[in-house]
Amino acid sequence: MYSEVIQQAAAGLAETIQSTAIPLYGDIVRLPDRKEVIGILKDLRKVLFPAYFGNKALMNQPAQDYEAQLLSEIQLHLEEQIALCLPLTEENTRRAQEISLDLISRLPAIGRMLLKDLEATFDGDPAAESSEEILFAYPGLYAIFVYRVAHPLYEHHVPLIPRIMSEYAHSRTGIDINPGAVIGEYFFIDHGTGIVVGETTIIGNHVKLYQGVTLGALSPRFGHNSIPGKRHPTVEDNVTIYSGATILGGNTVIGANTVVGGNAFLTRSVSGNTKVVIKAPETIYENA
Amino acid sequence: MYSEVIQQAAAGLAETIQSTAIPLYGDIVRLPDRKEVIGILKDLRKVLFPAYFGNKALMNQPAQDYEAQLLSEIQLHLEEQIALCLPLTEENTRRAQEISLDLISRLPAIGRMLLKDLEATFDGDPAAESSEEILFAYPGLYAIFVYRVAHPLYEHHVPLIPRIMSEYAHSRTGIDINPGAVIGEYFFIDHGTGIVVGETTIIGNHVKLYQGVTLGALSPRFGHNSIPGKRHPTVEDNVTIYSGATILGGNTVIGANTVVGGNAFLTRSVSGNTKVVIKAPETIYENA
Amino acid sequence: MYSEVIQQAAAGLAETIQSTAIPLYGDIVRLPDRKEVIGILKDLRKVLFPAYFGNKALMNQPAQDYEAQLLSEIQLHLEEQIALCLPLTEENTRRAQEISLDLISRLPAIGRMLLKDLEATFDGDPAAESSEEILFAYPGLYAIFVYRVAHPLYEHHVPLIPRIMSEYAHSRTGIDINPGAVIGEYFFIDHGTGIVVGETTIIGNHVKLYQGVTLGALSPRFGHNSIPGKRHPTVEDNVTIYSGATILGGNTVIGANTVVGGNAFLTRSVSGNTKVVIKAPETIYENA
Amino acid sequence: MYSEVIQQAAAGLAETIQSTAIPLYGDIVRLPDRKEVIGILKDLRKVLFPAYFGNKALMNQPAQDYEAQLLSEIQLHLEEQIALCLPLTEENTRRAQEISLDLISRLPAIGRMLLKDLEATFDGDPAAESSEEILFAYPGLYAIFVYRVAHPLYEHHVPLIPRIMSEYAHSRTGIDINPGAVIGEYFFIDHGTGIVVGETTIIGNHVKLYQGVTLGALSPRFGHNSIPGKRHPTVEDNVTIYSGATILGGNTVIGANTVVGGNAFLTRSVSGNTKVVIKAPETIYENA
Amino acid sequence: MYSEVIQQAAAGLAETIQSTAIPLYGDIVRLPDRKEVIGILKDLRKVLFPAYFGNKALMNQPAQDYEAQLLSEIQLHLEEQIALCLPLTEENTRRAQEISLDLISRLPAIGRMLLKDLEATFDGDPAAESSEEILFAYPGLYAIFVYRVAHPLYEHHVPLIPRIMSEYAHSRTGIDINPGAVIGEYFFIDHGTGIVVGETTIIGNHVKLYQGVTLGALSPRFGHNSIPGKRHPTVEDNVTIYSGATILGGNTVIGANTVVGGNAFLTRSVSGNTKVVIKAPETIYENA
Amino acid sequence: MYSEVIQQAAAGLAETIQSTAIPLYGDIVRLPDRKEVIGILKDLRKVLFPAYFGNKALMNQPAQDYEAQLLSEIQLHLEEQIALCLPLTEENTRRAQEISLDLISRLPAIGRMLLKDLEATFDGDPAAESSEEILFAYPGLYAIFVYRVAHPLYEHHVPLIPRIMSEYAHSRTGIDINPGAVIGEYFFIDHGTGIVVGETTIIGNHVKLYQGVTLGALSPRFGHNSIPGKRHPTVEDNVTIYSGATILGGNTVIGANTVVGGNAFLTRSVSGNTKVVIKAPETIYENA
Repeated sequence: MYSEVIQQAAAGLAETIQSTAIPLYGDIVRLPDRKEVIGILKDLRKVLFPAYFGNKALMNQPAQDYEAQLLSEIQLHLEEQIALCLPLTEENTRRAQEISLDLISRLPAIGRMLLKDLEATFDGDPAAESSEEILFAYPGLYAIFVYRVAHPLYEHHVPLIPRIMSEYAHSRTGIDINPGAVIGEYFFIDHGTGIVVGETTIIGNHVKLYQGVTLGALSPRFGHNSIPGKRHPTVEDNVTIYSGATILGGNTVIGANTVVGGNAFLTRSVSGNTKVVIKAPETIYENA
Repeated sequence: MYSEVIQQAAAGLAETIQSTAIPLYGDIVRLPDRKEVIGILKDLRKVLFPAYFGNKALMNQPAQDYEAQLLSEIQLHLEEQIALCLPLTEENTRRAQEISLDLISRLPAIGRMLLKDLEATFDGDPAAESSEEILFAYPGLYAIFVYRVAHPLYEHHVPLIPRIMSEYAHSRTGIDINPGAVIGEYFFIDHGTGIVVGETTIIGNHVKLYQGVTLGALSPRFGHNSIPGKRHPTVEDNVTIYSGATILGGNTVIGANTVVGGNAFLTRSVSGNTKVVIKAPETIYENA
Repeated sequence: MYSEVIQQAAAGLAETIQSTAIPLYGDIVRLPDRKEVIGILKDLRKVLFPAYFGNKALMNQPAQDYEAQLLSEIQLHLEEQIALCLPLTEENTRRAQEISLDLISRLPAIGRMLLKDLEATFDGDPAAESSEEILFAYPGLYAIFVYRVAHPLYEHHVPLIPRIMSEYAHSRTGIDINPGAVIGEYFFIDHGTGIVVGETTIIGNHVKLYQGVTLGALSPRFGHNSIPGKRHPTVEDNVTIYSGATILGGNTVIGANTVVGGNAFLTRSVSGNTKVVIKAPETIYENA
Repeated sequence: MYSEVIQQAAAGLAETIQSTAIPLYGDIVRLPDRKEVIGILKDLRKVLFPAYFGNKALMNQPAQDYEAQLLSEIQLHLEEQIALCLPLTEENTRRAQEISLDLISRLPAIGRMLLKDLEATFDGDPAAESSEEILFAYPGLYAIFVYRVAHPLYEHHVPLIPRIMSEYAHSRTGIDINPGAVIGEYFFIDHGTGIVVGETTIIGNHVKLYQGVTLGALSPRFGHNSIPGKRHPTVEDNVTIYSGATILGGNTVIGANTVVGGNAFLTRSVSGNTKVVIKAPETIYENA
Repeated sequence: MYSEVIQQAAAGLAETIQSTAIPLYGDIVRLPDRKEVIGILKDLRKVLFPAYFGNKALMNQPAQDYEAQLLSEIQLHLEEQIALCLPLTEENTRRAQEISLDLISRLPAIGRMLLKDLEATFDGDPAAESSEEILFAYPGLYAIFVYRVAHPLYEHHVPLIPRIMSEYAHSRTGIDINPGAVIGEYFFIDHGTGIVVGETTIIGNHVKLYQGVTLGALSPRFGHNSIPGKRHPTVEDNVTIYSGATILGGNTVIGANTVVGGNAFLTRSVSGNTKVVIKAPETIYENA
Repeated sequence: MYSEVIQQAAAGLAETIQSTAIPLYGDIVRLPDRKEVIGILKDLRKVLFPAYFGNKALMNQPAQDYEAQLLSEIQLHLEEQIALCLPLTEENTRRAQEISLDLISRLPAIGRMLLKDLEATFDGDPAAESSEEILFAYPGLYAIFVYRVAHPLYEHHVPLIPRIMSEYAHSRTGIDINPGAVIGEYFFIDHGTGIVVGETTIIGNHVKLYQGVTLGALSPRFGHNSIPGKRHPTVEDNVTIYSGATILGGNTVIGANTVVGGNAFLTRSVSGNTKVVIKAPETIYENA
């Protein structure tokens, strides 16, 4: 027999669980398998950067064969996980397959994008010794990789999986890029911790973000005139945003070739070719 | 024989270890098992949100039986770990059991609190597609969950375990809530990275925090008139604090229904029903 | 036969991989084993703080024997990993051994440094209950530990490994200390998330950093007159830097005994014995 | 789309699975978890021989407390696994608990039995250096241990679990003792591989078995006059059975103090105090 | 520097390794991955007996879809492992695929065979409580399952993999069935330990084998008149062979409906409908 | 509070544990770590057959360097485990090192022995397709490998470890070779299950054993005139012993060039150049 305390707590929890409309008990929620989703991310790195993350024993065959094998497996796992996120119908079984195949077919382009991001990172960070080091150890490139594979799933309205992917990257890197964001080529993220890129953000080519930058929404109470649905800013080509800057609002556009200084706080658009500097608050130097 | 270098280093380390009053060598420190403590957190999620984190095979029995089984195991593991944090006496063996039973008995109420936090999160984040997604993938709710189970252990003055729990959540989410804080219902944390909530903070109901918010202590050199022991602020009901705001000091009270704008820096109390906005520092737009 | 989609994607990826000068396919890149490197960090904690992270069963022998055994293993693993980062030559095989032995020989001194950092942490954080708690659970001390063992490898110009170590600590703690920084005794990091310490930073003794502090480089576009190669600031003895402060530039020196207030933004030197306070931006309190 | 071959095979397997009355698909079979059952065996060794298989860190408390903690966990796991073997009814939930408690309550007696088996092993094997060696490494004692804990579950008519336990021991040791057998004190098994002890065997005290001994059933075609249900022999006290001997049949009784020589083949009873020797078949020595 | 002893031993081993024509060093041997091969066996059980070994979460879809998903994965892994056993040529890449697809296409028939083996086991063992118990815990059926999937690979002359499979089963069950044997329907193996079935054995339908039975080769020195290549016996339909019997030689045929008694030793053919009994060697009963 | 049943069982077990002179509770027994010992066996295979069991990534360096690295690690682990088997004294610490170094220094010779055993296996088994297959999958060679590395430890009177090694091989292969046996070159074991080779057995060169062979001791009651301490037989060069044969007794010598037929039972010496055949017991063929 369970002790009194255990029994009462069990009864209480059973009641709590049933007190809500959210299904909390039983085999009633279709859910993907978090470990499998993370496994797919791992396998995607094997496909995109074989020499760094793949199994060397498999690489004495032609690259195309190596890729075909791994892609077949990834496609199966992905199809399975997508199907687990959708109500069980024949239609959805087909959709799960189509979506997984679509992601597979985009991988070569994603690979080319990531090589450009890698180049941008190498150019942007004087502390980087080699492309190798960036590929192998940089959190910024890792977060961009996860974004680039999660985004097509977001576009297909796959529930949960893109979010699981982006939160996994967030947890490892402190960089939170919503998979809904639209991000151009040659994207560079330095250090990274504390970066937030919101769901409806649009970012052009050759953009650089430093740690602690927020591309966020005006809060409901503060914001006005937002394009319905577009809650986060637009950043045009060749923009650099230094650490701690906050740019908010769906109508806010940072024009091309602009540099936004550290800790800037912008809720209005900035035309292109501008240098935005915060006039430093007065600093007082007292004798200690 | 070890080489000269190894032997000298070993001798040097042995000496270093003995050069301090802190016990560093031998079976002299009673310590909980970090993995077990994290395992308890995992089991608590199985009990609070069975359909999401529990073993489906066990859920074809009535919910109360499922809960009683798991609670029994959690209680045993928790008692064991608490006992490992206390000096080995009969009195403490009994205390370990009492404390573990007390936490068990509070779980139904904690479950109800978390459902309210979930509701607050769903209402607060327009990007959230479903309660499911929040439960399964949101770091904010995860950090609140850990806080809500670690806090009763802090109240019982259990050493180490509440801190191990909160640091685990901190490491996974970037959100650092000291288990000593007192936090009301319907608590919402967005994104989260960089949030710090200090040990003696008091937070009311319906409070929202955005990333990078600090509820901290005035440093010893800066602070005055602190209530002894109360080093962190009080935030009353229905307060929203936007990203990057810093609120410091044990006497600082943010009155009910207040909105604190992003990057605000407050070391004095604010009466209720206020909107606190930082007058933006002058922003200079130069041609780039 | 692979399906059409798989085959095309495989061909596309094979092409992508060959479209770059960066070696991406085959057994052509010598790389360390990330898991082994992290394993070395774990073993180093066993050697430095045996009672907390070591195997108690091995501690009924004299401390020196315990250390010698573990050090021998660490040296072997480290030598192996270093060798994997260098081109395969006899000269490099010898270098890998010399470097690994050099790190081993420095460990007693590193151990003494960490005991001082521990003391600084205990003194600096009123919420710390015991040295035990700090050793076992504080992210700040963990990040400092990783820095102190990665730095000698950086000095020896070992590729990749110091970076893998520091990014591992970054991922677990949100604290990003470049292994190239030079940091004195009694270093204290509070909370930690969001701290960035750049590659050429110099930090004296008895320095305290709070969360979100950046010791960074002026960006190429902004900076002038930098000492070639020295891109990050110098912080002298007994300096405290509060949360969110940003200090930039290789010529920027924060003089001894200075206190830098929260959210300060400094790109110029500050003489010693100074208290740097940001004059708070005007705060507006409207009725909500 | 799956290829033709896959689709046809999948259809064929779906058909195969449905072609039988045995339920082969879906969540329709209640089954214990094999890993958990093996985990219970591991935990039982921790309870019976703590210094050899238990966690030393837990043994600085009084033995009774150590045992109580582990027993509580074992009881919970066992109850859970037993419940998974029975149809889901309230009655069976109670039975699962009662049976698990009954096994717990018998453990002290089982412990005493095993110490006698250990003594018999030490006395019986001149190659044994110490009791330690036997406890730690002898397959014979391991198989007896598993039998002694599986037997009470067999008596309670628990399905599957006793068999999973005995097959696990069989797989590790080559010794196949059916959990239904009834075996007295001071039981000794040498080497062990190939020993078979059938379900209705009865074995007295101080019995020794060598490798390859079968205590089996007469096959249906061969056997006569069997006691209904009793298909395997009875071996009385102080009997030694040398390697390769086969003893068959439910009516076959080997009287006390008997020695059965290697490779004997007995299907009839032997009175006590007898030495049974096979007259060796003629051996021919030819020049090779 | 390595110590003298290590260096000499290393030099000695390097020499030893080069003293043989067998390639022992470097990346020169193409080998399958043992863990992957065992993983394929595990996956095949998921496909053949889903309710017992499969993932229940996947079984709320139609059986055919469940099968198709798993089969696709198995086919990929199998193709990969087969390819690793063959010299790397385009021809062999195609062969690896064809063979893997062939095994997939035979699985429905293999499934039907195993259901018959299961039926034979249930009928043959009075101690079996249920088909469930046999499927879940009987070593005999496990060994037959492994044989039935390894045999088609043997027929295709795949190197290594069939042997790895059969040795894995041998290690777990003590039953050694060479994958080259040809075995009919309704095959039953009791207990099993010590059974050996040689490479060129032919076994008909409804055959039963008990523990310790050898179907082996006459040794070169002993044997005469063997059919070239056929070194092991033929056992026709409805034959039962009791424990410890040894039947040797490629020309030896045990005719249909024969019963071979325990410990029989046969090197010549037996016509059908015979009962072969060893006249027991004289047994001497002395007073002990 | 634990339930009544748990408490009584715990008290009973505590009493049981204290009822014996064998130390069963607390940190009082020095024991090796079974997993580490098995790990050493795994590492020894990497050193002896690198291409089959080693890490290919490490094999692009010269073989001698590869060996030296691995040997250094093996020596450390072995020294540690040996030390755990001996009472803790300085003298024993030195002995542990000497013994481990001695095993290391013998490895080149052991490697050459194993290549001869491999040759004998290839010659002896017509079913073996390649040396590769034998190395990778044959239980016989595995058991011989374990014997050859465990035997020197036995000679040094290391407690427990040689036995743990031989029981591990026994458990995997069904072959039980006591590490005390003395075995010559070109040793061949077929199939293997059920083979027993006792502690004081002496085996010459070019000996072949088939499954189920016992080289054992006359039991105390049966045996006479044994050389004190020598309890198991001597088998001279070029002897073949077929399956199921039993040879017992310390004075029993099987002379060179002898062939012992299957199921022979010998307790007396056989001169050389003999063919020992059991006159088959009369076999009766009845109509079934």
